[in-house]
Amino acid sequence: MEEDSGNTHTRFLRMAIALAREGMASGAGGPFGALVVRDGEILARGVNRVTTWLDPTAHAEIVAIREACDRLGHWQLEGCILYTSCEPCPMCLGAIYWARPSGVWFAATRVDAARAGFDDELIYRELPLAPEARAIPMTYIHLEEARALWEDWEAKPDKIMY
Amino acid sequence: MEEDSGNTHTRFLRMAIALAREGMASGAGGPFGALVVRDGEILARGVNRVTTWLDPTAHAEIVAIREACDRLGHWQLEGCILYTSCEPCPMCLGAIYWARPSGVWFAATRVDAARAGFDDELIYRELPLAPEARAIPMTYIHLEEARALWEDWEAKPDKIMY
Repeated sequence: MEEDSGNTHTRFLRMAIALAREGMASGAGGPFGALVVRDGEILARGVNRVTTWLDPTAHAEIVAIREACDRLGHWQLEGCILYTSCEPCPMCLGAIYWARPSGVWFAATRVDAARAGFDDELIYRELPLAPEARAIPMTYIHLEEARALWEDWEAKPDKIMY
Repeated sequence: MEEDSGNTHTRFLRMAIALAREGMASGAGGPFGALVVRDGEILARGVNRVTTWLDPTAHAEIVAIREACDRLGHWQLEGCILYTSCEPCPMCLGAIYWARPSGVWFAATRVDAARAGFDDELIYRELPLAPEARAIPMTYIHLEEARALWEDWEAKPDKIMY
Protein backbone atom coordinates (compact mmCIF):
# COMPACT_ATOMS: atom_id res chain seq x y z
CA MET A 1 0.00 0.00 0.00
CA GLU A 2 1.32 3.44 -0.86
CA GLU A 3 1.71 6.19 1.70
CA ASP A 4 -1.60 7.77 2.70
CA SER A 5 -0.35 10.48 5.00
CA GLY A 6 -2.82 12.04 7.35
CA ASN A 7 -4.88 9.04 8.29
CA THR A 8 -4.95 7.50 11.73
CA HIS A 9 -3.00 4.38 10.86
CA THR A 10 -0.22 6.43 9.30
CA ARG A 11 -0.08 8.69 12.34
CA PHE A 12 0.38 5.75 14.74
CA LEU A 13 2.90 4.11 12.40
CA ARG A 14 4.93 7.33 12.43
CA MET A 15 4.86 7.19 16.24
CA ALA A 16 6.12 3.59 16.13
CA ILE A 17 8.96 4.66 13.85
CA ALA A 18 9.78 7.56 16.18
CA LEU A 19 9.93 5.08 19.08
CA ALA A 20 12.23 2.85 17.03
CA ARG A 21 14.48 5.81 16.38
CA GLU A 22 14.58 6.74 20.08
CA GLY A 23 15.39 3.15 21.01
CA MET A 24 18.17 3.03 18.43
CA ALA A 25 19.60 6.38 19.55
CA SER A 26 19.56 5.42 23.24
CA GLY A 27 21.27 2.10 22.51
CA ALA A 28 18.32 0.06 23.83
CA GLY A 29 18.56 -2.45 20.98
CA GLY A 30 17.66 -2.83 17.31
CA PRO A 31 15.73 -0.18 15.36
CA PHE A 32 12.22 -1.39 16.15
CA GLY A 33 9.26 0.27 17.86
CA ALA A 34 5.65 -0.78 18.44
CA LEU A 35 2.42 0.58 19.91
CA VAL A 36 -0.78 -1.07 21.08
CA VAL A 37 -3.81 1.15 20.51
CA ARG A 38 -7.46 0.67 21.45
CA ASP A 39 -10.20 3.10 20.42
CA GLY A 40 -7.55 5.65 19.53
CA GLU A 41 -5.84 5.43 22.93
CA ILE A 42 -2.24 4.25 23.21
CA LEU A 43 -2.20 1.43 25.77
CA ALA A 44 1.47 0.47 25.49
CA ARG A 45 4.73 1.38 23.79
CA GLY A 46 7.64 -0.97 23.14
CA VAL A 47 11.13 -0.69 21.73
CA ASN A 48 13.57 -3.51 21.04
CA ARG A 49 15.59 -4.19 24.20
CA VAL A 50 17.32 -7.48 23.34
CA THR A 51 20.90 -6.34 23.93
CA THR A 52 20.23 -4.20 27.03
CA TRP A 53 17.75 -6.47 28.80
CA LEU A 54 19.83 -9.49 27.68
CA ASP A 55 16.55 -11.02 26.57
CA PRO A 56 16.25 -12.50 23.07
CA THR A 57 12.45 -12.23 23.32
CA ALA A 58 12.45 -8.48 24.04
CA HIS A 59 11.37 -7.46 20.54
CA ALA A 60 9.37 -4.23 20.35
CA GLU A 61 6.11 -6.05 19.61
CA ILE A 62 6.53 -8.50 22.51
CA VAL A 63 7.42 -5.67 24.90
CA ALA A 64 4.33 -3.71 23.80
CA ILE A 65 2.01 -6.74 23.90
CA ARG A 66 3.13 -7.68 27.41
CA GLU A 67 2.70 -4.12 28.66
CA ALA A 68 -0.73 -3.75 27.04
CA CYS A 69 -1.93 -7.03 28.56
CA ASP A 70 -0.61 -5.94 31.93
CA ARG A 71 -2.53 -2.68 31.61
CA LEU A 72 -5.74 -4.40 30.49
CA GLY A 73 -5.43 -7.14 33.10
CA HIS A 74 -5.97 -9.82 30.47
CA TRP A 75 -3.89 -12.09 28.25
CA GLN A 76 -5.85 -11.06 25.19
CA LEU A 77 -5.82 -7.83 23.20
CA GLU A 78 -9.38 -7.96 21.91
CA GLY A 79 -10.27 -4.84 19.95
CA CYS A 80 -6.68 -3.56 19.94
CA ILE A 81 -4.45 -2.69 17.01
CA LEU A 82 -0.70 -3.26 16.96
CA TYR A 83 1.38 -0.72 15.07
CA THR A 84 4.97 -1.70 14.45
CA SER A 85 7.82 -0.02 12.62
CA CYS A 86 8.67 -3.26 10.80
CA GLU A 87 6.93 -6.46 9.76
CA PRO A 88 6.90 -8.79 12.78
CA CYS A 89 9.30 -11.75 12.88
CA PRO A 90 7.87 -15.27 13.28
CA MET A 91 8.28 -15.14 17.08
CA CYS A 92 6.30 -11.90 17.23
CA LEU A 93 3.72 -13.26 14.76
CA GLY A 94 3.23 -16.20 17.10
CA ALA A 95 2.79 -13.81 20.03
CA ILE A 96 0.26 -11.82 17.97
CA TYR A 97 -1.84 -14.94 17.33
CA TRP A 98 -1.81 -15.79 21.03
CA ALA A 99 -2.71 -12.19 22.00
CA ARG A 100 -5.30 -11.87 19.20
CA PRO A 101 -5.42 -8.14 18.46
CA SER A 102 -7.89 -7.17 15.73
CA GLY A 103 -5.21 -6.01 13.30
CA VAL A 104 -1.55 -5.20 12.70
CA TRP A 105 -0.02 -2.34 10.69
CA PHE A 106 3.66 -2.08 9.75
CA ALA A 107 5.88 0.42 7.92
CA ALA A 108 8.87 -1.64 6.72
CA THR A 109 9.11 -5.24 5.58
CA ARG A 110 11.10 -8.37 6.32
CA VAL A 111 13.15 -7.51 3.23
CA ASP A 112 14.30 -4.27 4.87
CA ALA A 113 15.13 -6.20 8.06
CA ALA A 114 17.01 -8.90 6.13
CA ARG A 115 19.05 -6.30 4.25
CA ALA A 116 20.24 -5.02 7.65
CA GLY A 117 21.19 -8.51 8.81
CA PHE A 118 18.11 -9.57 10.82
CA ASP A 119 17.55 -13.13 9.77
CA ASP A 120 13.79 -13.50 10.01
CA GLU A 121 13.91 -15.37 6.69
CA LEU A 122 15.90 -18.21 8.23
CA ILE A 123 13.12 -18.70 10.77
CA TYR A 124 10.42 -18.61 8.08
CA ARG A 125 12.31 -21.29 6.17
CA GLU A 126 12.90 -23.45 9.24
CA LEU A 127 9.38 -23.53 10.68
CA PRO A 128 7.77 -25.76 8.04
CA LEU A 129 10.59 -28.34 8.28
CA ALA A 130 10.29 -31.50 10.30
CA PRO A 131 11.79 -30.87 13.75
CA GLU A 132 14.69 -33.26 13.15
CA ALA A 133 15.58 -31.53 9.86
CA ARG A 134 16.05 -28.06 11.31
CA ALA A 135 19.31 -26.11 11.66
CA ILE A 136 18.84 -26.29 15.43
CA PRO A 137 18.23 -30.03 15.88
CA MET A 138 14.93 -30.83 17.60
CA THR A 139 14.26 -34.34 18.81
CA TYR A 140 11.05 -35.98 19.92
CA ILE A 141 11.06 -38.74 22.51
CA HIS A 142 7.69 -40.29 23.24
CA LEU A 143 7.26 -40.61 27.00
CA GLU A 144 4.35 -42.20 28.77
CA GLU A 145 4.41 -39.44 31.42
CA ALA A 146 3.65 -36.86 28.73
CA ARG A 147 0.63 -38.79 27.53
CA ALA A 148 -0.66 -39.10 31.10
CA LEU A 149 -0.13 -35.35 31.65
CA TRP A 150 -2.30 -34.51 28.64
CA GLU A 151 -5.02 -36.88 29.78
CA ASP A 152 -5.06 -35.24 33.19
CA TRP A 153 -5.20 -31.76 31.65
CA GLU A 154 -8.13 -32.77 29.47
CA ALA A 155 -9.94 -34.15 32.53
CA LYS A 156 -9.14 -31.13 34.74
CA PRO A 157 -12.47 -29.51 35.63
CA ASP A 158 -11.22 -26.00 36.43
CA LYS A 159 -8.74 -25.50 33.60
CA ILE A 160 -8.56 -22.06 31.95
CA MET A 161 -7.98 -22.06 28.20
CA TYR A 162 -6.22 -19.20 26.45
CA MET B 1 11.93 -41.85 18.49
CA GLU B 2 10.83 -44.53 20.91
CA GLU B 3 11.35 -44.25 24.63
CA ASP B 4 14.97 -44.80 25.70
CA SER B 5 14.61 -44.57 29.45
CA GLY B 6 17.71 -44.00 31.47
CA ASN B 7 19.62 -41.65 29.23
CA THR B 8 20.33 -38.03 30.07
CA HIS B 9 17.89 -36.52 27.61
CA THR B 10 15.06 -38.68 28.90
CA ARG B 11 15.90 -37.74 32.48
CA PHE B 12 15.68 -34.01 31.74
CA LEU B 13 12.50 -34.50 29.70
CA ARG B 14 10.93 -36.26 32.67
CA MET B 15 11.86 -33.25 34.80
CA ALA B 16 10.22 -30.93 32.26
CA ILE B 17 7.06 -33.04 32.40
CA ALA B 18 7.14 -32.97 36.21
CA LEU B 19 7.39 -29.17 36.04
CA ALA B 20 4.45 -29.08 33.64
CA ARG B 21 2.44 -31.19 36.07
CA GLU B 22 3.32 -28.89 38.99
CA GLY B 23 2.35 -25.84 36.96
CA MET B 24 -0.93 -27.43 36.00
CA ALA B 25 -1.69 -28.50 39.57
CA SER B 26 -0.89 -25.06 41.01
CA GLY B 27 -3.09 -23.35 38.41
CA ALA B 28 -0.16 -21.40 36.92
CA GLY B 29 -1.36 -21.98 33.35
CA GLY B 30 -1.38 -24.68 30.68
CA PRO B 31 0.34 -28.08 31.12
CA PHE B 32 3.77 -27.11 29.86
CA GLY B 33 7.22 -27.17 31.46
CA ALA B 34 10.72 -26.46 30.15
CA LEU B 35 14.33 -26.54 31.31
CA VAL B 36 17.52 -24.97 29.98
CA VAL B 37 20.56 -27.14 30.66
CA ARG B 38 24.24 -26.53 29.99
CA ASP B 39 26.92 -29.15 30.61
CA GLY B 40 24.45 -31.14 32.68
CA GLU B 41 23.57 -28.18 34.92
CA ILE B 42 20.01 -26.82 35.01
CA LEU B 43 20.25 -23.09 34.35
CA ALA B 44 16.54 -22.28 34.31
CA ARG B 45 13.10 -23.79 34.75
CA GLY B 46 9.87 -22.49 33.25
CA VAL B 47 6.21 -23.38 33.44
CA ASN B 48 3.38 -21.87 31.44
CA ARG B 49 2.07 -18.77 33.25
CA VAL B 50 -0.16 -17.18 30.60
CA THR B 51 -3.35 -17.02 32.66
CA THR B 52 -1.74 -16.05 35.98
CA TRP B 53 0.83 -13.54 34.69
CA LEU B 54 -1.80 -12.28 32.19
CA ASP B 55 0.95 -12.55 29.60
CA PRO B 56 0.25 -14.36 26.32
CA THR B 57 4.00 -14.77 25.78
CA ALA B 58 4.59 -16.57 29.10
CA HIS B 59 4.93 -20.03 27.57
CA ALA B 60 7.19 -22.42 29.49
CA GLU B 61 9.96 -22.20 26.87
CA ILE B 62 9.96 -18.39 26.80
CA VAL B 63 9.98 -18.22 30.61
CA ALA B 64 12.92 -20.65 30.75
CA ILE B 65 14.84 -18.93 27.92
CA ARG B 66 14.47 -15.50 29.54
CA GLU B 67 15.58 -16.82 32.92
CA ALA B 68 18.56 -18.69 31.46
CA CYS B 69 19.70 -15.60 29.54
CA ASP B 70 19.33 -13.52 32.68
CA ARG B 71 21.47 -16.03 34.55
CA LEU B 72 24.13 -16.19 31.81
CA GLY B 73 24.12 -12.41 31.31
CA HIS B 74 23.73 -12.82 27.56
CA TRP B 75 20.94 -12.87 24.99
CA GLN B 76 22.22 -16.12 23.51
CA LEU B 77 22.12 -19.66 24.85
CA GLU B 78 25.23 -20.98 23.15
CA GLY B 79 25.98 -24.55 24.18
CA CYS B 80 22.67 -24.95 26.00
CA ILE B 81 19.92 -27.51 25.47
CA LEU B 82 16.23 -26.77 25.88
CA TYR B 83 14.07 -29.59 27.19
CA THR B 84 10.35 -29.04 26.92
CA SER B 85 7.36 -31.20 27.81
CA CYS B 86 5.75 -30.47 24.42
CA GLU B 87 6.82 -29.47 20.92
CA PRO B 88 7.30 -25.67 20.91
CA CYS B 89 4.66 -23.49 19.24
CA PRO B 90 5.75 -21.13 16.43
CA MET B 91 6.25 -18.24 18.88
CA CYS B 92 8.56 -20.37 21.01
CA LEU B 93 10.32 -21.72 17.91
CA GLY B 94 11.02 -18.13 16.91
CA ALA B 95 12.39 -17.41 20.38
CA ILE B 96 14.57 -20.53 20.09
CA TYR B 97 16.10 -19.30 16.82
CA TRP B 98 16.83 -15.90 18.37
CA ALA B 99 18.34 -17.52 21.50
CA ARG B 100 20.22 -20.17 19.49
CA PRO B 101 20.57 -23.11 21.90
CA SER B 102 22.43 -26.08 20.45
CA GLY B 103 19.42 -28.37 20.54
CA VAL B 104 15.84 -28.94 21.66
CA TRP B 105 14.21 -32.11 23.02
CA PHE B 106 10.48 -32.57 23.53
CA ALA B 107 8.18 -35.30 24.90
CA ALA B 108 4.80 -34.60 23.29
CA THR B 109 3.87 -33.20 19.89
CA ARG B 110 1.77 -30.45 18.39
CA VAL B 111 -0.83 -33.13 17.70
CA ASP B 112 -1.19 -33.76 21.43
CA ALA B 113 -1.47 -29.99 22.03
CA ALA B 114 -4.04 -29.57 19.25
CA ARG B 115 -6.16 -32.43 20.62
CA ALA B 116 -6.36 -30.47 23.90
CA GLY B 117 -7.40 -27.29 22.09
CA PHE B 118 -4.08 -25.42 21.75
CA ASP B 119 -4.19 -24.08 18.24
CA ASP B 120 -0.54 -24.09 17.22
CA GLU B 121 -1.64 -25.45 13.84
CA LEU B 122 -3.53 -22.25 13.04
CA ILE B 123 -0.30 -20.30 13.51
CA TYR B 124 1.69 -22.74 11.37
CA ARG B 125 -0.89 -22.32 8.60
CA GLU B 126 -1.00 -18.53 8.89
CA LEU B 127 2.74 -17.77 8.87
CA PRO B 128 3.43 -18.59 5.19
CA LEU B 129 0.46 -16.50 4.01
CA ALA B 130 0.86 -12.97 2.70
CA PRO B 131 0.28 -10.55 5.59
CA GLU B 132 -2.92 -9.18 4.08
CA ALA B 133 -4.35 -12.70 3.64
CA ARG B 134 -4.07 -13.69 7.30
CA ALA B 135 -6.93 -14.28 9.77
CA ILE B 136 -5.61 -11.32 11.75
CA PRO B 137 -5.33 -8.70 9.00
CA MET B 138 -1.84 -7.25 8.63
CA THR B 139 -1.31 -4.18 6.48
CA TYR B 140 1.88 -2.66 5.12
CA ILE B 141 2.15 1.08 4.54
CA HIS B 142 5.38 2.23 2.99
CA LEU B 143 6.65 5.27 4.88
CA GLU B 144 9.70 7.29 4.01
CA GLU B 145 10.57 7.62 7.71
CA ALA B 146 10.96 3.84 7.93
CA ARG B 147 13.39 3.78 5.03
CA ALA B 148 15.42 6.60 6.60
CA LEU B 149 15.47 4.74 9.93
CA TRP B 150 16.97 1.64 8.30
CA GLU B 151 19.59 3.70 6.51
CA ASP B 152 20.61 5.30 9.79
CA TRP B 153 20.78 1.90 11.51
CA GLU B 154 22.99 0.52 8.76
CA ALA B 155 25.29 3.55 9.09
CA LYS B 156 25.38 3.45 12.92
CA PRO B 157 28.98 2.76 13.93
CA ASP B 158 28.34 1.33 17.40
CA LYS B 159 25.36 -0.93 16.69
CA ILE B 160 25.19 -4.30 18.40
CA MET B 161 23.75 -7.13 16.31
CA TYR B 162 21.94 -10.06 17.87
